[in-house]
Amino acid sequence: MATSSRALTKLTVPPSGAVLRQPFQSAPRLFLQSSRRTVAARPVFGSIQGPVGRQFRRGYAGEAAPPVPQPPKKEKARFRILKRTWRVTYLSALAGIAYIGYGVYQDRHPEDQVEPDPSKKTLVILGTGWGSVSLLKRLDTENYNVVVISPRNYFLFTPLLPSCTTGTIEHRSIMEPIRTILRSKRARVKFYEAEASSIDPDRKVVRIFDNSEIRGDITETEVPYDMLVVGVGAENATFGIPGVRENSCFLKEIGDAQRIRKRIMDCVETAAFKDQSPEEVDRLMHMVVVGGGPTGVEFAGELQDFFQEDIKKLVPDIADRFKVTLIEALPNVLPMFSKQLIEYTEKSFKEEKIDIRTKTVVKRVTDKAVEAEAVAADGTKETVVFPYGLLVWATGNAVRPVVRDLMARIPAQANSRRGLAVNEYLVVQGTHDIWAVGDCAVAGYAPTAQVAGQEGTFLARLFNNMAKTEMLEDKMAQLSASLNVEPGNPAAVSREIEEHDRQLRRIKDVKPFHYSHQGSLAYIGSDKAVADVTWFNGNVAAAGSLTYLFWRSAYISMCFSTRNRLLVINDWLKSKVFGRDLSRE
Amino acid sequence: MATSSRALTKLTVPPSGAVLRQPFQSAPRLFLQSSRRTVAARPVFGSIQGPVGRQFRRGYAGEAAPPVPQPPKKEKARFRILKRTWRVTYLSALAGIAYIGYGVYQDRHPEDQVEPDPSKKTLVILGTGWGSVSLLKRLDTENYNVVVISPRNYFLFTPLLPSCTTGTIEHRSIMEPIRTILRSKRARVKFYEAEASSIDPDRKVVRIFDNSEIRGDITETEVPYDMLVVGVGAENATFGIPGVRENSCFLKEIGDAQRIRKRIMDCVETAAFKDQSPEEVDRLMHMVVVGGGPTGVEFAGELQDFFQEDIKKLVPDIADRFKVTLIEALPNVLPMFSKQLIEYTEKSFKEEKIDIRTKTVVKRVTDKAVEAEAVAADGTKETVVFPYGLLVWATGNAVRPVVRDLMARIPAQANSRRGLAVNEYLVVQGTHDIWAVGDCAVAGYAPTAQVAGQEGTFLARLFNNMAKTEMLEDKMAQLSASLNVEPGNPAAVSREIEEHDRQLRRIKDVKPFHYSHQGSLAYIGSDKAVADVTWFNGNVAAAGSLTYLFWRSAYISMCFSTRNRLLVINDWLKSKVFGRDLSRE
Repeated sequence: MATSSRALTKLTVPPSGAVLRQPFQSAPRLFLQSSRRTVAARPVFGSIQGPVGRQFRRGYAGEAAPPVPQPPKKEKARFRILKRTWRVTYLSALAGIAYIGYGVYQDRHPEDQVEPDPSKKTLVILGTGWGSVSLLKRLDTENYNVVVISPRNYFLFTPLLPSCTTGTIEHRSIMEPIRTILRSKRARVKFYEAEASSIDPDRKVVRIFDNSEIRGDITETEVPYDMLVVGVGAENATFGIPGVRENSCFLKEIGDAQRIRKRIMDCVETAAFKDQSPEEVDRLMHMVVVGGGPTGVEFAGELQDFFQEDIKKLVPDIADRFKVTLIEALPNVLPMFSKQLIEYTEKSFKEEKIDIRTKTVVKRVTDKAVEAEAVAADGTKETVVFPYGLLVWATGNAVRPVVRDLMARIPAQANSRRGLAVNEYLVVQGTHDIWAVGDCAVAGYAPTAQVAGQEGTFLARLFNNMAKTEMLEDKMAQLSASLNVEPGNPAAVSREIEEHDRQLRRIKDVKPFHYSHQGSLAYIGSDKAVADVTWFNGNVAAAGSLTYLFWRSAYISMCFSTRNRLLVINDWLKSKVFGRDLSRE
Repeated sequence: MATSSRALTKLTVPPSGAVLRQPFQSAPRLFLQSSRRTVAARPVFGSIQGPVGRQFRRGYAGEAAPPVPQPPKKEKARFRILKRTWRVTYLSALAGIAYIGYGVYQDRHPEDQVEPDPSKKTLVILGTGWGSVSLLKRLDTENYNVVVISPRNYFLFTPLLPSCTTGTIEHRSIMEPIRTILRSKRARVKFYEAEASSIDPDRKVVRIFDNSEIRGDITETEVPYDMLVVGVGAENATFGIPGVRENSCFLKEIGDAQRIRKRIMDCVETAAFKDQSPEEVDRLMHMVVVGGGPTGVEFAGELQDFFQEDIKKLVPDIADRFKVTLIEALPNVLPMFSKQLIEYTEKSFKEEKIDIRTKTVVKRVTDKAVEAEAVAADGTKETVVFPYGLLVWATGNAVRPVVRDLMARIPAQANSRRGLAVNEYLVVQGTHDIWAVGDCAVAGYAPTAQVAGQEGTFLARLFNNMAKTEMLEDKMAQLSASLNVEPGNPAAVSREIEEHDRQLRRIKDVKPFHYSHQGSLAYIGSDKAVADVTWFNGNVAAAGSLTYLFWRSAYISMCFSTRNRLLVINDWLKSKVFGRDLSRE
């Protein structure tokens, strides 16, 4: 945590545009993931910034040096300084590359793994999202027989998903195979690519099935557990609005981003079809986004960028008919951000010609239009119809069937509606060997990646401690039993017991989970971003182009691996240099 | 052509492994695309190879210099040479980068386009494959109203498709949006993303329909033409074998490569599912490829690489059960290559443990097994069953419905079976304003990218000439009509007419299409390739790791654009450094 906020501090010192200090706010904020992950990222920047900084300083020092009468000598000195600076710069660059290269090499050539000890407890982890993977990252797998089960054999860096919809980033750059993550652990971890269909807390088994296209003889089986972590996330909620599931694209999984990317180009090509009527072109070029949270706002921004920077150049005849509308039921977008940033976003969207319709509730969706009810300033309601080419539904979380089933089996969960109610140690209420993290857990926080990540990290610490405690207690019991029975020095054994006891007391003291909000970030298009970042006891709100650079560096540092980091940077460069790809695929 | 073969020559001078000169063979060879495209590629290599070569030469010259008595002086001289070499190297590198950067900038910022002149003839081009795009690349679009129609809004560099199936190359790196290609032309070209359903040669119209997911009010319409080029390619042939279409993956389009990539990982994850029986693991890990042509062979090689280099490390428990079988009905694989190379390939595959089953004809395919009839050495036939996890069908071309329909409307095509029979100028027999190129045309050559590309280039030259001829003839008619009627110098007008006539005679002389075979290339796995390259009047056969480097540089130089070239190199580096991605997506 400390490292993370330090990293943030360092980066926010020169914020741009509208910088406003605010009193400390305790309301939960969304979207910025915090973890020690940032530590690994720093060398990347360090190695670039370091020498450049030095270069400037030296150059300056050379100019300010006491004037020397002979001009040729001064020239020479200046030249020498330049040369030395150049040498330092490229040597540092080489060292940086070597360092990163070594990291990548280490990742690809991990040490041999030890086989799990069958006498140890079986820890089953469901899911490969932020919660489960943060847990896995810090978990000492030698202490348990760890089994990971998920229908998705990779971790997805969700904050950059909106960038995938237009090809600013390629989808594989924000995916990290779970096999790579597991391979880096000391003790081997089993992974089953399967969906959990039900959990039986009495028999302590998870029922799983293979829901992919290719199936073997065994497609369904049971996995017994001693300890279970549920991190299966949530599914998309449509709030019972008719037509949403059939006609809109969600934006939660990588497949959704690919589908949207394909459909954007499909709309463009269909609008460019021979003899299409002007009204039909307007409909096809109208992209409607429902949900004014960070995902919806970032997607709208990315979409506008795609059209302005790429499609306009290559399909000029219809590109000016393009329009984005953002529909939000609440009175404003980005409700978790400060008022100034909301206003800044709304102003920017106006300039970018993205239409924001707040206080507008979707009532019905057909294959070509969204019907909504808008509340006017005077309180009157009117029905608005938005004909659309592409509809993206970026709002709402619903409980997954496996979680609903588990809740029904636990009497203590009878009153919980939005997911598995957990206690302060993230233990599912009414059980003693099931924990829940992320969007499927109700712990009093917003359903964000940042919360899930911190919960996973907390559980890893908890489980590591539990294992150590058990180990020390076993040892103490052994020593105690042997005291004065077996030959040896009783005083030394007593001292050893005392030492263990002291260690134990230190370890056992795990404080309940506490979420520490690091801040919220959102990209709003046209190379601008908004950021609400917790800093010391206050809050820094920043917006503009420099904030966009901060947004980029924060996301880069939050990426799962060096591989992801380099690939995302590579993609940003690619889309800058070559433009985004217009191929419909 | 000349440039292309020069490029080949330069690269094959130091071939590796088994290098064999052969007498000239006139049999058509497959797969190596030739065109002036290579010209654009050369600077990339030139700028890198140049200075490096010089560096070595200079270093060597320094060492071999006559011995100087004073050692410090020699040291200094050596140091100076090193320094100078280094300077030349990095300055050349910088110049190379600037040159490539300028090229990319030019591609992204093309000149303004002129609107097409409606009084000119309408040239409709069907398809965006090798034939159509080669034609478009050289066509002077100011001479016609050009309309391009294809269900695929990008050009696909098919020779690298097998590399996409395992993620060695990302699919977007070998796709070039047709919009980018059309944007670089002088006069604007219309593009409709649509499938041609029928061609009416009497009314001179093409009927098209939008077969994509998103459709507008107009989904079907007619496009009239004055001249028509059919370059729609072929579809996959299953030779009427039951179960092929339902159970196997083809390898022709980009979607096929993505499907295969997903299925490979699905097989691995299903094999790793809990309690899967050993026989079932063997079945799931068995990948069967039908078709021993370059596509099948390259795919088998890529698959073996993927398992050896990546999957084995990360899923060690089941990776040794992995097996590839290549089934071919003919007596050997790669029938278009020389005997030595076939033997080399078969030997290599044996070492890589890829099972080649020649003289084996597939009879039936079920969802889990291929049934085939194998002819033994003594001529006896036996039925073999191959249980499989993944089946890839990499053989056979069939006529597309739109082509079959057109053939039925033209009496002269009654006896043609495999596609549109064309004359020596690629005019469809029985018509005078329809041309055909590529796999849908029967011109007496193998259905390869190389043939299609040369046909397209030929047509571009033909059409450019036709337009110029018409223009000159019009001008001559005008001059002739004005001669001695309008005031002026009759002698000068006569001279002008003569000059036009001379130009006309020079232009009009377009020789019939002649295919010039440049060679055949195939990657066979484990960083080895085979190459049969036409050189002067003979043939050079090469195999091994250096040939693999040649394979890479040849394919890079054949890529459509600088963008494609840089992206493919980028992908090769990526998969070398980070390994291939194991995420099933």
